[in-house]
Amino acid sequence: MPPDTQSITAYGPARSTIDGAPLSPDEVRRTQRYWDASLYLSAGMIYLRENALLREPLKSEHIKKRLLGHWGSDAGMSLIYIHMNRLIKKYDLDTIFIAGPGHGAPAIISNTYLEGSYSEIYTDIGRDGEGLQRLFKQFSFPGGIGSHCTPETPGSIHEGGELGYSISHAYGAAFDNPDLIVTVMVGDGESETGPLATAWHSNKFLNPVRDGAVLPILHLNGYKIANPTILARIPHEEVEHLFRGYGYEPYFIEGSDPETMHQAVAATLEHCVQEIRRIQTEARASSGPLERPRWPMIVLRSPKGWTGPKEVDGHKVEGFWRAHQVPLAEVHEKPEHLAQLEAWLRSYKLEELFDDNGSFVAELAELAPEGTRRMGANLHANGGLLRKSLKMPDFRDYAVAVETPGQTEVGPTAVLATFLRDIARSNPHNFRVFSPDENASNRLTAIYEATKKVWMGEYFPEDADGTEITQDGRVMEMLSEHTLEGWLEGYLLTGRHGFFSTYEAFVHVIDSMFNQHAKWLEKSSELSWRADVSSLNLLITSTVWRQDHNGFTHQDPGFLDVVANKSPSVTRIYLPPDANTLLSVGDHCLRSKNYVNVIVADKQPHLSYLDIDAAEKHCTKGAGIWEWASTDKDHEPDIVMASCGDVATMESLAATELLLGHFPDLKIRFVNVVDLFRLVPDTEHPHGFSDREFDALFTPNKPVIFNFHAYPWLIHRLTYRRNNHVNFHVRGYKEKGNINTPMELAIQNQVDRFTLAIDAIDRIPSLKLRGSHARETLKEQQIDCRRYAYAEGIDPPDIVHWTWKGQG
Amino acid sequence: MPPDTQSITAYGPARSTIDGAPLSPDEVRRTQRYWDASLYLSAGMIYLRENALLREPLKSEHIKKRLLGHWGSDAGMSLIYIHMNRLIKKYDLDTIFIAGPGHGAPAIISNTYLEGSYSEIYTDIGRDGEGLQRLFKQFSFPGGIGSHCTPETPGSIHEGGELGYSISHAYGAAFDNPDLIVTVMVGDGESETGPLATAWHSNKFLNPVRDGAVLPILHLNGYKIANPTILARIPHEEVEHLFRGYGYEPYFIEGSDPETMHQAVAATLEHCVQEIRRIQTEARASSGPLERPRWPMIVLRSPKGWTGPKEVDGHKVEGFWRAHQVPLAEVHEKPEHLAQLEAWLRSYKLEELFDDNGSFVAELAELAPEGTRRMGANLHANGGLLRKSLKMPDFRDYAVAVETPGQTEVGPTAVLATFLRDIARSNPHNFRVFSPDENASNRLTAIYEATKKVWMGEYFPEDADGTEITQDGRVMEMLSEHTLEGWLEGYLLTGRHGFFSTYEAFVHVIDSMFNQHAKWLEKSSELSWRADVSSLNLLITSTVWRQDHNGFTHQDPGFLDVVANKSPSVTRIYLPPDANTLLSVGDHCLRSKNYVNVIVADKQPHLSYLDIDAAEKHCTKGAGIWEWASTDKDHEPDIVMASCGDVATMESLAATELLLGHFPDLKIRFVNVVDLFRLVPDTEHPHGFSDREFDALFTPNKPVIFNFHAYPWLIHRLTYRRNNHVNFHVRGYKEKGNINTPMELAIQNQVDRFTLAIDAIDRIPSLKLRGSHARETLKEQQIDCRRYAYAEGIDPPDIVHWTWKGQG
Repeated sequence: MPPDTQSITAYGPARSTIDGAPLSPDEVRRTQRYWDASLYLSAGMIYLRENALLREPLKSEHIKKRLLGHWGSDAGMSLIYIHMNRLIKKYDLDTIFIAGPGHGAPAIISNTYLEGSYSEIYTDIGRDGEGLQRLFKQFSFPGGIGSHCTPETPGSIHEGGELGYSISHAYGAAFDNPDLIVTVMVGDGESETGPLATAWHSNKFLNPVRDGAVLPILHLNGYKIANPTILARIPHEEVEHLFRGYGYEPYFIEGSDPETMHQAVAATLEHCVQEIRRIQTEARASSGPLERPRWPMIVLRSPKGWTGPKEVDGHKVEGFWRAHQVPLAEVHEKPEHLAQLEAWLRSYKLEELFDDNGSFVAELAELAPEGTRRMGANLHANGGLLRKSLKMPDFRDYAVAVETPGQTEVGPTAVLATFLRDIARSNPHNFRVFSPDENASNRLTAIYEATKKVWMGEYFPEDADGTEITQDGRVMEMLSEHTLEGWLEGYLLTGRHGFFSTYEAFVHVIDSMFNQHAKWLEKSSELSWRADVSSLNLLITSTVWRQDHNGFTHQDPGFLDVVANKSPSVTRIYLPPDANTLLSVGDHCLRSKNYVNVIVADKQPHLSYLDIDAAEKHCTKGAGIWEWASTDKDHEPDIVMASCGDVATMESLAATELLLGHFPDLKIRFVNVVDLFRLVPDTEHPHGFSDREFDALFTPNKPVIFNFHAYPWLIHRLTYRRNNHVNFHVRGYKEKGNINTPMELAIQNQVDRFTLAIDAIDRIPSLKLRGSHARETLKEQQIDCRRYAYAEGIDPPDIVHWTWKGQG
Repeated sequence: MPPDTQSITAYGPARSTIDGAPLSPDEVRRTQRYWDASLYLSAGMIYLRENALLREPLKSEHIKKRLLGHWGSDAGMSLIYIHMNRLIKKYDLDTIFIAGPGHGAPAIISNTYLEGSYSEIYTDIGRDGEGLQRLFKQFSFPGGIGSHCTPETPGSIHEGGELGYSISHAYGAAFDNPDLIVTVMVGDGESETGPLATAWHSNKFLNPVRDGAVLPILHLNGYKIANPTILARIPHEEVEHLFRGYGYEPYFIEGSDPETMHQAVAATLEHCVQEIRRIQTEARASSGPLERPRWPMIVLRSPKGWTGPKEVDGHKVEGFWRAHQVPLAEVHEKPEHLAQLEAWLRSYKLEELFDDNGSFVAELAELAPEGTRRMGANLHANGGLLRKSLKMPDFRDYAVAVETPGQTEVGPTAVLATFLRDIARSNPHNFRVFSPDENASNRLTAIYEATKKVWMGEYFPEDADGTEITQDGRVMEMLSEHTLEGWLEGYLLTGRHGFFSTYEAFVHVIDSMFNQHAKWLEKSSELSWRADVSSLNLLITSTVWRQDHNGFTHQDPGFLDVVANKSPSVTRIYLPPDANTLLSVGDHCLRSKNYVNVIVADKQPHLSYLDIDAAEKHCTKGAGIWEWASTDKDHEPDIVMASCGDVATMESLAATELLLGHFPDLKIRFVNVVDLFRLVPDTEHPHGFSDREFDALFTPNKPVIFNFHAYPWLIHRLTYRRNNHVNFHVRGYKEKGNINTPMELAIQNQVDRFTLAIDAIDRIPSLKLRGSHARETLKEQQIDCRRYAYAEGIDPPDIVHWTWKGQG
């Protein structure tokens, strides 16, 4: 057996870094009673469907048949919420509350109910006995509300269903909100996740002059579902070292005795708020560069399931993992459990907490802040209410001149960067750009002309030569997609705007965060009281087709498959083929609300096809025929050459040219798709084409050679219901790659011009007999191409410098 | 401007925690020359296609046309590699090397070449001038090798293409390898990722008695692609605090002066190795429980691009982010760059390093270890060579008795757990089970009868009551899917076996790690010298259909879509419908090699359908007709009811029963799919059915109502080429959910028995006219069902206790 070290316990009178007893005895009493009320409500939500005020003896039929919810972290979270209420009132603080252990929703719901914000939103759940009854019954009940801090929870911007993002969300909310203090409870379970472990470093990116503050309270309640937590089972010194190492000043509060804990929590929280104000005041009074402040954070060690049953059936519950969910689970089966539940519930003396009408008694209710100072009603947590539309320059002003399609190369992202730069200039306080150390790599450096990368770390003289860091920049770069995504979500949900660019293969790092944000947006859209927020704009670049030196690990265009699984009401995918279409798409996305917009566009130079007017028209249609590349005017086409994506489009055009070189009379229709969901039936996605529109582009019965940027199966998945699906021949990335030249990689995956032209020949009935010579020639050209690459390490010049020669 | 703090610089004579000069002047000289050789090779790989030994003046045509590769971290990594060589020889260490900054592959490739392990594997790249030439040319060249530590790299188990997993891989390799020291270089860039930031806590799970050691060297070379790194720009004390907080004893080495740095590195590494040995010796001599050791780790601060060009075109390069990739990029365009490159390359005095034949001179070559002690030839890094097949009990012995299909409920994962328990018993040193605090939740607790959860943190008396932690357990639980997946990968790649269970929705957290591991396996399979490793077995449970209390955030079956994008040669997906099929699938997966096996099976009780013989047969076929649920014997079916997944199968069977209740003469064929890739054409996946086999199950032209566990589109994607695809009507999860009872959730997503039965009626021509009454009845039943759930919070008893009544 391991040693019984138990070096630290959560039990006993409070022990804390900050001494002091700021509360009068009456304040202690009232705070305790307020806390009792919140805990009674928390337990009530989990258990009661009737007899909400325990006006009669508790019986089995009063209790929900299925007991769901989490008790474990409620008491600790509620304690902090209530003590923050005191400070909000005392200092007129502007504060929101983020509940990292999302499972502890009862603590938040009960507090928003007690402060009144809940009933203002949900008027059917009033501040009386009937309302209380409804509040209880709806919790974790079909047709009701979930047991996390879902969008339905007033004051929540963080659901906590998936763990790990509380700190990054908190910092995202704090950026550019100089008066805001984000109180964030961090579970010691979620602390073990990677995203949480690195998000503590967010303090290197928070500028006390123009940003608000984050006050993290690490809640060491000791246990996860069925295990102790790491941070609760290392010596005190290690915890202290760790948070000093993360750059914080940690304050400790440990204990279980309510009275002394109230004093300790009150004193410590107040000290931290004062520290925050001191740091901010000094920074804002200073003119020069700042030293990175050592922000306060709190480590609160209190028992899991605190104030609940100490033991059940002879097993320790309070202060143990058994308190994680429902402490007494067999109340329907065991009378002694029912009795124990009743005793526990009555221990909060609710008859003193709620009056005859079932309303919270006034002497306690008045402890809560008022109006929008209540954390359940703070406007920042319903950020759409504060959101101001971006001031947008005219994207047409950034257009690349295109006189003839496919003649000149330009880096689309570099063009977009000039547009983003001016958006950043025009919106200096509510727009940020995010990237994991890749803005420069992704050719977005023009943004630095407006605002540089924020950096509160040390500064070396050599940084002046191109590092582009400064304390007051608004470009966010850290090598953590998780942290960036969390910051961005927090920034958007509090009413601001952002733009995230990242390498295509590694956007999978945040698949799960995307899923969760999409779910948040979908649920929010069903709530009339939640105001619209800006879309999350994600530029996916450094794409699969240009990974010459990075190879196989950097080739993965599968994020689109993840996105396509989420609700059509919140997802949009765009694959602009060139610079002007990227500008048009970028403009559209930055104006949109409540979506996740995914834009796929490579950072390397690519041919431009459309002038800005044509680009805008094309993007508005979402997909259309490129007449200049088509030869089917006034005829039925022999074949449709279709493309979606920049490299895919170039190869498809080159294939068209090759085909026309061999068969000048061929009737080819060239179709380009920008808005991927156009392919889906209009019954399935708001952007979908009707069957008539779809057939008008792709014909009801002609062969279609569809060249796709990503995995080819996605196109089949989106089009399988279409009339002409059986004639769709889709090419795309199929997991073949290594160190390759661009053309060699295209050939391996059969998205190259030669393969596409051969594909077409094979499918056009009239070429069945006369196509063999052309097919041979194309095969040879393809082989020559590969041979050259293997010898020289680069593609042949006529491939590298290929331009569209027109239709002959 | 921010303050010029520059509190720490990487320049100057070495400063280090451990003093001492263990090397003789001649050892310093020879170590320096060895290092020079590795650095010359590293630079040569990036630049030279000819003139590899610089026997003639350097000209543009000697240089690759496209310059790819990363110079930045090479010098620091190579330095550690070489100094580890000395200790390997001195102490006969068994050591592998993990290169966190995967971009630094030249450092590893050059060292494996110098030690001879490279040429033993790649005999065409000999240890002479010609071999050297080939070594250079193939690097980052089409048809050659990548610039990360890809599977092609001798001694590598960690590619580093995606950053963040070096530490978890290292610990995975060290578990159950008591004599192994895993030297792991950690980039300060990757240190910013979430997965890396939490993986440091792996030391709470490493038992010095039976596990090996991990020696992390955090390489503070200061910069990422275009930014400083966080850890390089915080004060020294914070770095020290951080690693003490993580539970390590940090040792610092800082400087750039080679001679003193050699002494500092030699002394520090030697001290750490001695510390490791001391910890291990003491632990292994002790009989009682251990105190968690404070393992050593090293912080190495050396200039990025060390020994490369100091400045280029007036810009600082060495010791700056500009050294990240190719320091001199315009050698073809600018003669002065070419001259500077030549001077740099010649600065290593290669004429003294390689003899006339181009072979590494003997007095230096002899510094390398020999045989399998060379880190490029260590067997652990080609773990398949050490792999022993699992001793497997007969899975049939764990079978659930099934006399009549669909009568009794049993929790499939709990049954599997008894099988896993006995595997753990029979393989006490090379099999581990992994889960993010969910083994108990996932009903796998039977495993604890064989081995408990390892825990080197503090132990409290109450833990004796069911916490199931101990210092010598082999169940790995930490609330970080990233760390678990990294441990498991490291464990498998070094020749052992493992089993990972995780909640379905949150397996998306490791989407990207799965992608990377699948890519590693695929590339490895192309290398004859890489021996087979055990498959990565992933049990996905707590599935979408049973999230009564967790709600929408916990509903996401989309991992299968991610998996289906990876190469068919390494991916397998199984959805066993009951306990016995899960046993059979589990047995198969644990015996398999070189795959990622994904098994989807819920943890809740589910009906059993097949006895163990039938289960084994069914799983071997992968998909088949269930005769006992079919009524089409000797007839063409009117309809095919097909299912894939446990809940999907139950609903499909219940629908079949409902249909037969209304239309007893209906010819229904019931098909169940376990092996998802059976659906794919055999030309696309080794498990795929031929069209003939597929048609034999699903008919060429009858309606098919396919009830699927996950997102329905995946089935269309897999079957769109099949003859009968047009008649496939697929139901599955479509992102509709909240707090729901199981049936209510099924109804919302239309995978419930009533919807399926109505679907069937709508598609059977003979029921067009006479189906309306049945349709109405089914609709009413469905509505009643929902009404009950909304009133009672649970499903109706006849739904909850439904069993298969047979065909009448």
